[in-house]
Amino acid sequence: MTMKLYIAGPEVFLPNAREMLTRKAELARQYGFEPLCPGDLEIPKTDSLRQMGLAISEIDEHMMNQSQAVIANLTPFRGIAADPGTVFELGYMCGQGKLVAVYTNVAANHYERVLAYYNGEVSIDDHGHKRGPDGLSLEDFGMIENLMLDGGVERRGGHVAIHAAEPEALYTDLTGFIACLEALAAKVKVMEAARDHGRKVDTLDASNDD
Amino acid sequence: MTMKLYIAGPEVFLPNAREMLTRKAELARQYGFEPLCPGDLEIPKTDSLRQMGLAISEIDEHMMNQSQAVIANLTPFRGIAADPGTVFELGYMCGQGKLVAVYTNVAANHYERVLAYYNGEVSIDDHGHKRGPDGLSLEDFGMIENLMLDGGVERRGGHVAIHAAEPEALYTDLTGFIACLEALAAKVKVMEAARDHGRKVDTLDASNDD
Repeated sequence: MTMKLYIAGPEVFLPNAREMLTRKAELARQYGFEPLCPGDLEIPKTDSLRQMGLAISEIDEHMMNQSQAVIANLTPFRGIAADPGTVFELGYMCGQGKLVAVYTNVAANHYERVLAYYNGEVSIDDHGHKRGPDGLSLEDFGMIENLMLDGGVERRGGHVAIHAAEPEALYTDLTGFIACLEALAAKVKVMEAARDHGRKVDTLDASNDD
Repeated sequence: MTMKLYIAGPEVFLPNAREMLTRKAELARQYGFEPLCPGDLEIPKTDSLRQMGLAISEIDEHMMNQSQAVIANLTPFRGIAADPGTVFELGYMCGQGKLVAVYTNVAANHYERVLAYYNGEVSIDDHGHKRGPDGLSLEDFGMIENLMLDGGVERRGGHVAIHAAEPEALYTDLTGFIACLEALAAKVKVMEAARDHGRKVDTLDASNDD
């Protein structure tokens, strides 16, 4: 059966959102997945903007519940961190034990971005923690995002693709997305091989019982 | 049995992180919950900073898996959006169908914050969508965050507490946290009453079989 893949990322906010999601969906199909994207289903008519927001949330969660895997675009969005909607969706899929892969189109890691946010004004406190001028501590784990994101992905054997896209292609460069598709497809192959091996072993065991 | 409550928020980055988590834990106990906080368990010695990050991720996920509820502090952090680690954790708990409540110490909603980020330079495109000068569309659903966050909480019957804290108490004001505790405690009471009612009905049914 084809594995359903949820496609999470801030491209839903782009002027060419539909085109980008179509491109991602086509690539996902080329790698053997059945893509599910936000915006694929029609939003029912609602009485208020708030009700519309809730309706979209329901549809997207339903698509995640149906999917066995997610690729999340964690490219920084309106600031130094990933789009919160995408982060929520990555957490949601990790919480359900799904297959996960993430990519970013910015090469600077989380620590480097926070350092730039503080204009380099970072000092070391009495306990050896790095702190900004506002007193908030900095994570310096060599990760692309907060440790819960990288940790959630890496500890599940998920791929983290880092690619320095050109500034004008920050949300449209799909190099990292393709790297995630390749990693996920390879993982699925290994899982299927293990399953088939398990079946063969079962068959042998059964024949031994004769 | 006491309900385990995971406490998610950016206070882990404060200079007085331990003190803040202790205050939150004490409040949670006063409302009948057993609090689980990041930082409660000792991090095992690791060979590298990266391994330490992964170890913390593992401990925090384990605490979430054990918890039946979460209160997440979505106060904007280093920019216009909530801390990504906290957002991941909210998504994680929603994905597992746990009880959720969130609060923010900033009264301006998501749309108002993005509008300020763009210095008010927002225009309407041909399809009626609001867009910033970078072409990215704005969500205007009257929500405190991206619709996946508010939607995930509201659609589960969770509480969204909004409180305008003083700037110097942005990460230490616990008014919203207490509002979430009250809402969660009331919800638990209703659930327990429904469960007890269910038991009575069961008992009656069983006696009818005699």
